[in-house]
Amino acid sequence: MDPLKVVRENILRMAGYVPGEQPRGGKVIKLNTNENPYPPSPRVLEAIRSSLDESLRLYPQPTADDLREKAAEVYGLPPECIIAGNGSDELLTMLVRVFVGEGEKVVYPTPTYTLYETLAEIQGGGTVEVPFPSDFSLPAGLAESEGKVLFLANPNSPSGTLVPTDQVRRLAESFRGIVVVDEAYADFAGETSIPLVRDLENVVVLRTFSKSFSLAGIRLGLAFGNPGVIEQMMKVKDSYNVNRLTQVAGIAALEDLEWMKENVRKVVRTRERMTEKLKEMGFTVLPSRANFVFARREGEYLKNLYEGLKERGILVRFFDTPSLRDALRITVGTDEEVDLFLEELASLLK
Amino acid sequence: MDPLKVVRENILRMAGYVPGEQPRGGKVIKLNTNENPYPPSPRVLEAIRSSLDESLRLYPQPTADDLREKAAEVYGLPPECIIAGNGSDELLTMLVRVFVGEGEKVVYPTPTYTLYETLAEIQGGGTVEVPFPSDFSLPAGLAESEGKVLFLANPNSPSGTLVPTDQVRRLAESFRGIVVVDEAYADFAGETSIPLVRDLENVVVLRTFSKSFSLAGIRLGLAFGNPGVIEQMMKVKDSYNVNRLTQVAGIAALEDLEWMKENVRKVVRTRERMTEKLKEMGFTVLPSRANFVFARREGEYLKNLYEGLKERGILVRFFDTPSLRDALRITVGTDEEVDLFLEELASLLK
Repeated sequence: MDPLKVVRENILRMAGYVPGEQPRGGKVIKLNTNENPYPPSPRVLEAIRSSLDESLRLYPQPTADDLREKAAEVYGLPPECIIAGNGSDELLTMLVRVFVGEGEKVVYPTPTYTLYETLAEIQGGGTVEVPFPSDFSLPAGLAESEGKVLFLANPNSPSGTLVPTDQVRRLAESFRGIVVVDEAYADFAGETSIPLVRDLENVVVLRTFSKSFSLAGIRLGLAFGNPGVIEQMMKVKDSYNVNRLTQVAGIAALEDLEWMKENVRKVVRTRERMTEKLKEMGFTVLPSRANFVFARREGEYLKNLYEGLKERGILVRFFDTPSLRDALRITVGTDEEVDLFLEELASLLK
Repeated sequence: MDPLKVVRENILRMAGYVPGEQPRGGKVIKLNTNENPYPPSPRVLEAIRSSLDESLRLYPQPTADDLREKAAEVYGLPPECIIAGNGSDELLTMLVRVFVGEGEKVVYPTPTYTLYETLAEIQGGGTVEVPFPSDFSLPAGLAESEGKVLFLANPNSPSGTLVPTDQVRRLAESFRGIVVVDEAYADFAGETSIPLVRDLENVVVLRTFSKSFSLAGIRLGLAFGNPGVIEQMMKVKDSYNVNRLTQVAGIAALEDLEWMKENVRKVVRTRERMTEKLKEMGFTVLPSRANFVFARREGEYLKNLYEGLKERGILVRFFDTPSLRDALRITVGTDEEVDLFLEELASLLK
């Protein structure tokens, strides 16, 4: 029998999320997936090294309790308000599985992280897309949109822009569903909606260890929310979703916040310099609060620029859609990487 | 607003899968979650150690290509027939998300791994449960049951029994949907349905590194299936579902098959001895092809026995359901652990 005949219609139809390229080797300057250019804390490596023994034969803690207790200390919410995921992508998956049934809707401003649309498709749900105005402030009508879940990437990708916490609060007070604030880049912004979880039962805030903590390779994210919501998420997660070494790494990373903050300061300094240079070269650059910048040349098609950079060994992110094809999203690398990028870019624009 | 008001009905109603206890410390003989009592290959630990560097700041390969190529070599199917998961539980999750829409059905013989039911509930789907006969051979009528997916744990848990490959083949030839053969324990049985994937487009076989490879702590599973099915599973998986260290560990484990096989031989020897001893003590023990035994005292309620063992520091698995409460499922430990278990059991039965 043909197995495709029993695949769900919504799955068969969809294309699937396409992650940024991960080159398998060779010398490439990788400014395309917003990884941190600086290494993780040596304490993290040491903690994993100390856990490398025969205990790997045993399952991990199903609910990552030691990690949640450490996170509770750091973020000022009790452990029952916290759940750990195999990256924050898995936390997004849990949320749609809890809240979004077939035909039900997910709301988000656009352009944003395209995984939100993919996740709605996988559920057989629909989407309500509300375009950002050109300054990427909260769109009018967003709070009144009808849907079970509203996703707000904050800072947003690919724009890098931030919606201030008091506006997030007002949005959550008005929206008739769950507001998920996806704070993958919040450490670079220095502002967070985590405290809103205390007052607003419908707010869930997501954090990742992939960006500021330089740990994209270990897959770890945290969600903060009302204990009732966390309880529902626990029901749909895989039993042992976060492996032993990642749990240990997460605890060690949270015990060395200063390492992360120092890397953030370096990235922010480079980001500001990079923004100025790009402006001098004729790009429109939105004020970034993340670890990347979004540089636009109004109305120009930048695919050739993206490909020219790639030929010269520099990967940046290019989205070939009508609203984004006149822009590039460039991760903030080390100063050396950024200088090389700017140099190649200048020569390509000549 | 009350967030529980927007939770999907099926999620609100369900209880969630309850994994076996994972004690957080203390001296416990753990014979409850079918972990391997022997350590993983030293080559696995060494491979992880060599990968502990600043590359953790980078995302892993999204589709674990190096690992899939190694698995292709070992299992004799091309990489496009293989997908890696964050444990085989995640592969089960991918399968229900691809095939099971709301109101659609999942079929499985019972008693079996209770996660199949949980996964159907999460999808808002239904279940068709077909009871095994007392010898746990394939139930009549199973192949004719109506459902999108049929799950067959083979060897089955908690019974430990095996359905021979030729019978699995006939089942898959007749069933009008996908047949998922969950082979978590297959290395202990010495028989596999992986070759069926060549001939039957609707067969998916799952393997885990948690049991025979002694790597429950790293979370890794593999699915083998028709390229068309694997392609659909790729659409619903999280982008970076298997972390860097787990990918490296999986490759190293597959490069040292002899280590795994030697541990399997030891476990099988102990299993046979344990089976004999339990029979001498008056238990009915099904012929186990897994790394655990299922020991029954017809009609007796064994909760006290389970609790008595627990008080003495020995954890076994007890399922408090009408059809299973006269039995215990006991993981095969080291010879020393099994001797201690048998001793305490004998004294409790006196």
